[in-house]
Amino acid sequence: MNLKEYCGIVGIYNKSEAANYVYLGLHALQHRGQEAAGIVSTDGIQFYEHKGCGLVNDVFNKNSISSLRGNVAIGHNRYSTFGDDSIANIQPLFAHFDMGQIAIAHNGNIINANRIKKKLVDDGAIFNSNSDTEVIIHLIARSQKTTFFDRLTDAVKVLKGAFSLIIMRENEIYAIRDPWGFRPLSMGKLDDATVFASETCAFDLIGAEFIRDISPGEIVVAGNEGVKHYSNVFDATNEKKCVFEYIYFSRPDSYLWGKNIYSIRKRMGEVLAEESFVEADIVIPTPDSGVPAALGFSKKSGIPFDFGLIRNHYVGRTFIEPTQTIRHFGVRLKLNPSKDVLKDKRVVVVDDSIVRGTTSKRIVKMLKSAGAKEVHLRISSPPVISPCFYGMDTPTKRELIASSHSTEEIRKYTTADSLEYLSIEGLKKVVGETGYCFACFDGNYPVEFDRE
Amino acid sequence: MNLKEYCGIVGIYNKSEAANYVYLGLHALQHRGQEAAGIVSTDGIQFYEHKGCGLVNDVFNKNSISSLRGNVAIGHNRYSTFGDDSIANIQPLFAHFDMGQIAIAHNGNIINANRIKKKLVDDGAIFNSNSDTEVIIHLIARSQKTTFFDRLTDAVKVLKGAFSLIIMRENEIYAIRDPWGFRPLSMGKLDDATVFASETCAFDLIGAEFIRDISPGEIVVAGNEGVKHYSNVFDATNEKKCVFEYIYFSRPDSYLWGKNIYSIRKRMGEVLAEESFVEADIVIPTPDSGVPAALGFSKKSGIPFDFGLIRNHYVGRTFIEPTQTIRHFGVRLKLNPSKDVLKDKRVVVVDDSIVRGTTSKRIVKMLKSAGAKEVHLRISSPPVISPCFYGMDTPTKRELIASSHSTEEIRKYTTADSLEYLSIEGLKKVVGETGYCFACFDGNYPVEFDRE
Amino acid sequence: MNLKEYCGIVGIYNKSEAANYVYLGLHALQHRGQEAAGIVSTDGIQFYEHKGCGLVNDVFNKNSISSLRGNVAIGHNRYSTFGDDSIANIQPLFAHFDMGQIAIAHNGNIINANRIKKKLVDDGAIFNSNSDTEVIIHLIARSQKTTFFDRLTDAVKVLKGAFSLIIMRENEIYAIRDPWGFRPLSMGKLDDATVFASETCAFDLIGAEFIRDISPGEIVVAGNEGVKHYSNVFDATNEKKCVFEYIYFSRPDSYLWGKNIYSIRKRMGEVLAEESFVEADIVIPTPDSGVPAALGFSKKSGIPFDFGLIRNHYVGRTFIEPTQTIRHFGVRLKLNPSKDVLKDKRVVVVDDSIVRGTTSKRIVKMLKSAGAKEVHLRISSPPVISPCFYGMDTPTKRELIASSHSTEEIRKYTTADSLEYLSIEGLKKVVGETGYCFACFDGNYPVEFDRE
Amino acid sequence: MNLKEYCGIVGIYNKSEAANYVYLGLHALQHRGQEAAGIVSTDGIQFYEHKGCGLVNDVFNKNSISSLRGNVAIGHNRYSTFGDDSIANIQPLFAHFDMGQIAIAHNGNIINANRIKKKLVDDGAIFNSNSDTEVIIHLIARSQKTTFFDRLTDAVKVLKGAFSLIIMRENEIYAIRDPWGFRPLSMGKLDDATVFASETCAFDLIGAEFIRDISPGEIVVAGNEGVKHYSNVFDATNEKKCVFEYIYFSRPDSYLWGKNIYSIRKRMGEVLAEESFVEADIVIPTPDSGVPAALGFSKKSGIPFDFGLIRNHYVGRTFIEPTQTIRHFGVRLKLNPSKDVLKDKRVVVVDDSIVRGTTSKRIVKMLKSAGAKEVHLRISSPPVISPCFYGMDTPTKRELIASSHSTEEIRKYTTADSLEYLSIEGLKKVVGETGYCFACFDGNYPVEFDRE
Repeated sequence: MNLKEYCGIVGIYNKSEAANYVYLGLHALQHRGQEAAGIVSTDGIQFYEHKGCGLVNDVFNKNSISSLRGNVAIGHNRYSTFGDDSIANIQPLFAHFDMGQIAIAHNGNIINANRIKKKLVDDGAIFNSNSDTEVIIHLIARSQKTTFFDRLTDAVKVLKGAFSLIIMRENEIYAIRDPWGFRPLSMGKLDDATVFASETCAFDLIGAEFIRDISPGEIVVAGNEGVKHYSNVFDATNEKKCVFEYIYFSRPDSYLWGKNIYSIRKRMGEVLAEESFVEADIVIPTPDSGVPAALGFSKKSGIPFDFGLIRNHYVGRTFIEPTQTIRHFGVRLKLNPSKDVLKDKRVVVVDDSIVRGTTSKRIVKMLKSAGAKEVHLRISSPPVISPCFYGMDTPTKRELIASSHSTEEIRKYTTADSLEYLSIEGLKKVVGETGYCFACFDGNYPVEFDRE
Repeated sequence: MNLKEYCGIVGIYNKSEAANYVYLGLHALQHRGQEAAGIVSTDGIQFYEHKGCGLVNDVFNKNSISSLRGNVAIGHNRYSTFGDDSIANIQPLFAHFDMGQIAIAHNGNIINANRIKKKLVDDGAIFNSNSDTEVIIHLIARSQKTTFFDRLTDAVKVLKGAFSLIIMRENEIYAIRDPWGFRPLSMGKLDDATVFASETCAFDLIGAEFIRDISPGEIVVAGNEGVKHYSNVFDATNEKKCVFEYIYFSRPDSYLWGKNIYSIRKRMGEVLAEESFVEADIVIPTPDSGVPAALGFSKKSGIPFDFGLIRNHYVGRTFIEPTQTIRHFGVRLKLNPSKDVLKDKRVVVVDDSIVRGTTSKRIVKMLKSAGAKEVHLRISSPPVISPCFYGMDTPTKRELIASSHSTEEIRKYTTADSLEYLSIEGLKKVVGETGYCFACFDGNYPVEFDRE
Repeated sequence: MNLKEYCGIVGIYNKSEAANYVYLGLHALQHRGQEAAGIVSTDGIQFYEHKGCGLVNDVFNKNSISSLRGNVAIGHNRYSTFGDDSIANIQPLFAHFDMGQIAIAHNGNIINANRIKKKLVDDGAIFNSNSDTEVIIHLIARSQKTTFFDRLTDAVKVLKGAFSLIIMRENEIYAIRDPWGFRPLSMGKLDDATVFASETCAFDLIGAEFIRDISPGEIVVAGNEGVKHYSNVFDATNEKKCVFEYIYFSRPDSYLWGKNIYSIRKRMGEVLAEESFVEADIVIPTPDSGVPAALGFSKKSGIPFDFGLIRNHYVGRTFIEPTQTIRHFGVRLKLNPSKDVLKDKRVVVVDDSIVRGTTSKRIVKMLKSAGAKEVHLRISSPPVISPCFYGMDTPTKRELIASSHSTEEIRKYTTADSLEYLSIEGLKKVVGETGYCFACFDGNYPVEFDRE
Repeated sequence: MNLKEYCGIVGIYNKSEAANYVYLGLHALQHRGQEAAGIVSTDGIQFYEHKGCGLVNDVFNKNSISSLRGNVAIGHNRYSTFGDDSIANIQPLFAHFDMGQIAIAHNGNIINANRIKKKLVDDGAIFNSNSDTEVIIHLIARSQKTTFFDRLTDAVKVLKGAFSLIIMRENEIYAIRDPWGFRPLSMGKLDDATVFASETCAFDLIGAEFIRDISPGEIVVAGNEGVKHYSNVFDATNEKKCVFEYIYFSRPDSYLWGKNIYSIRKRMGEVLAEESFVEADIVIPTPDSGVPAALGFSKKSGIPFDFGLIRNHYVGRTFIEPTQTIRHFGVRLKLNPSKDVLKDKRVVVVDDSIVRGTTSKRIVKMLKSAGAKEVHLRISSPPVISPCFYGMDTPTKRELIASSHSTEEIRKYTTADSLEYLSIEGLKKVVGETGYCFACFDGNYPVEFDRE
């Protein structure tokens, strides 16, 4: 799938050269946002920041990392949502307020941000960024409560939507997940240091030990007095974890909400095979995201697994525009079909999802022109019919092909010989009946939105 | 002299490719700030910004200039005062508030900024920069008045100290000078466009016509309804124009407060010669700042003018640290003595001012080692005894050699054969008795300060 | 495997914006050399060049590509062999000589280069690079023959060792393979243009059609009079194609010497399974190079294929040095084990080769610490016992673990429960008995070398 | 004047961190070439090089300087002549030849280079650059003599034209001036180190002591056995030092051929005043090159010296194209007239030379539009009627306004009220009757040229 995903966040408390670890953590979370990156660190007195557009390795170098002093640091990988490219919008955001300094890294989407912003602005607030996240700092700064913790809870209780937050003050880090728990956030341990990250693969890279997920609605504080947690801050609500993290966002080696991503995707492929078996010679994935489901499909169906599309891993930043002589350039730049594998074969090709349908169409054509006799498209998630408002960058409803076309119409469009999606029931069989947001598949939005 | 000076600002209203002109204006004002530069433009709907550290030509290129769309733009050259190097502190500052968008460029120093900031922060404001200037936006945003003009006057009436401001909204530019008139700000005209700039040399470069200085305490608005001006906004106060603009800051080709900088500096040299004539063979300047005064000294004294120190104009960014074998490296990198001119001569060397005394000492040594028989140091301004709090970057009182040493002691330190300063009376003879701030020379601060 | 491979070369004749296509071709060949890249183009009169250190996308941008004018261009991706990092060593090399201008791109290693160089230098030649390739230009320039073709054949007949060459003159391109045919070179067609490239995957990317491999000892000329080929230039010799191109160098989607790389590697895995079956629960590859052989092993053995090591594809340029708290950092940065897949499993892990043994050791440890009960290492090529002198960057004999250790000793070193290599017979079963250089496996060097 | 000048060269032998000193020397010689710079150093075994396009400070940074190891180094500032922008043309050139390694830095122009090159190329030589300088290395490499010194003399005796050379081998540096002595080259001493540089200002900056000029036709060798010099290498010839070094090229603080540049230029102004006195109110220079002559003119004529044109020293790299509303942009960017100084005055403006006449025309217009009543143009050198072939970048004869127009016609073109040049006799009165090349003024070329 080609969805662009939202943001990775990392924080570490009580580790010398903290920014080094955050840098590596952002590296491990690079798949969650390639447009910009930033780190803010503190030595307990001053805050140090470095931000820029591009991949983690484009933004940082040895000098910039070593200028980020102190034992506490937080970082952010960004895929832009509603903000633009200005450096003021790159997170972590930083501000002075009456209790000192504060920096904040946010993964998610606050759906009542505009309403809150309007109220704040009417009340004399000024905004330096287009980021929704800035409202959180304003809410904290304007709370009349006397302790920072009370002000923080004042602030986050106003927010609706998806927010996994890492907030840094001079001597502590706060990790927060919204009461619905849309976006992931995990806690780990590295010697005496406490680490927070969007995904556990960041812990693996820096050699930290995964402890547990932050719970929906929970606030965890790592500070001088150790690690404390608060679970009764928000009103009771139903857990609504984003099921798309399982399907596409998270890295296969991460463990999320008690499950390994790779294993759960393989299981989706198995159920998909149960639901939509087809006689074929080989099962191939769309690399890399379709690999685990294709393995699962192969295992359950007994049809041999193979690679019929070879991915070029150096690609991604080519600047030469495709000329007309180079057809389907964008896809071809990334994928090249293996004629040897495909020739005269009945092929099941497994992808994780279909958004606009254009990529699927190109892949089917590519496979057929490489000699495939039949191409059976199998999608390891249900049709995406509704846009996401909680921090996933789906296109508008109009652009979602499944919002207005039947599966048979989509099949015709892609020219596949057959097309089957994993059913919602099938998906629930894998992940569990409840506790997830399935809005992109069923249109039932767990939190009403009022974005003007 | 080696004082680092404060900021140049430019704005243009109603000119296609406005950012081009602001870029060139910043170029002409490069001497007022070499650490950072920024431009914000608007097409009436959106604001566009580009900022960075370094010289104007390091920060901008064709692409960045052409991305700054619209017919209205303002720009800023920065020498950092109390802020640090973070990009958030580079001006023009930009914000959203309840009446839309705003950008602001500031030259000067607001001495009650901390007090105001504290009050705002106590009241829930957050600050994204360390810049004093951000308080102005907050004051405007929080004013209860209904029109922007009333809010603006609400805001600026609270400020104490030095502020020449250029403020941009979607469809207008405001130019303001504080009621004391510390820092310069001029208005010009280029076809139908209105231009504002710290110095008139910016008008010359872009082919604009100089109209007049903005008066102390005046607000000028260039907008849809033409150019309006308001002079009764502030309480009456005494004009206190910074006399150091005449002595060192401004570019010699600028016209300021009715006088040409070059001519006034030459005149200072003449009066200096009247006050402290000495028998000598040649008068030489410390290039480039001492040139006009040395010419004046030569003219009045009848002693021939010559160049005994040659300046290397490519220098300024050499990164190799001087080793011990290269003595007086810093000065030598910029200046090289002409033995032919100096040998066996009695030399009057004219500089614009002495701050710490170290540079003067090195220059005297350089001249003597090149063969000068006598070196008579003549300074075309009085001894600097007190630091400036209005936007000039003087060192602390402790570092000002004249704050704790007599002229004779300074002479001994520099090893000059004689040392004379222009008297305050002499200075007043040139610039006029009143209307200026002489605080750096006499310690009489026209606006009390309360910086904690 | 971790061998660093040698060079990719591309050329295109008779295509407008030729440099665009060469740029894309170099992109497709990025796996053959990541240290430097260069393109030289010609409009028939002048030559244009652009070179630099780094990946293709670091070296080129729109401006540099568009400055490379003309309908003829050649390019080179470099992995440095005996030259150093100086820009003078980056290919294509360019020179003026008595017949005009010439540019040359070389893949391979000329083993008598030093001897030739010495002779040339003794004879008054000067060398601007450390590259072996420069001798070829000298030989051409010094030949007494009257036509370029005769001079070229004079030159290349002197060379011993591996050389696939693309040579550009003002109006023609020559493609040459040494008589042993060590390194690959293929010819394709794009509309009226003739294309040459190290691997066919470059043709796929630009939409060109693969025509055929250049034969060992063949010279192909694309020029005004169409495409001509000459096969009787060199003395008869035995074909000695580098078998390691099949094992590791070439991209899996390329077709080489009549075979698809992916398929041949899968077949190696099958034969490996026949030779060294072991009872196990899963077969996993070392990503990405071990994937096809692991699939083949799984297919033949019936043991299920899975991914037990997840590869992070963004990695490769991290600059932070591993601290002691981050053990096995280098490998971990690229690979992360899947506990879910590995836990309590008997694991067959398939890699393409073992060079020093250190990576294998780390991978075995990684798998065991992730819970694998048994780890059986299977290598889809024979033990590498001798260094390569024909353009493959193997370490010295001393560093090759198999040159001085038995398979059992290597097994112990890696802590694997069993270790088996593909036998030479097995390898020949897959690729064919003759026509290949197996020197790295058997020490029989087909061309004697005399490098001092 | 706007002539672009040719090349500065520096070398140092026997100084730790030699490249540091060469870097600083290039800095001091920046006025001799702003297009490219390079340094080659050696530790006695290996050569290290770093080159690039731009100013010295654009090309080098701390890292690149520290990578240039060893106690011997040479450097080059380049203004391109017949070569293009390719990095291969940036000096010092470097090569391997049969006696080891060699690097060479050249200031001047070899007029029989093409003829030599053709012969070398016919004889099988290949050329990697378009630089004339490469022929020298070839000649050395091909000489049949047994010692390097004999080969070197073999080589340089073939050359005709202008060449000041610094040549580096593993353990020695050679400094050479052509027998006519067109271009300068001086020797200095810094502790135990021997330093060579185009101008003595480079010695001043690094704290070296000037010893003497290298004589025309002299070869000086600094090596293990100390400093040796050889004066009888070339056939006897007449000294033809470039008089334009005195007029424009060299920095005013340099000492050249026994004279201080600044003093000699002042003296030219004095003689100019004797020859072409005119009644006027002020004498002003075209900054900066006209300053010393204007001072001399003022001294001799008794007309007061002043600055009527203020130079902006930050300018030089502005990329915005002048629009039509900004007339005379190029000149205005650098110079701004002082109305205060010029208004109603009869002005003598002194420039060092006129090439095309366009700049002079703009300056006269600028002065008049600033209020000058009369403008008398005085040029401190004779009319430039013939192009230079010895390393000065004059335009073609056609473009030299004085080659085809009388002084009165040029006066009319510039709109000056009067125009006078220094006569050739006047010039000789200052510099001496003989020993100089006056070809640009009288067309008598001391070395015949045969450039095809």
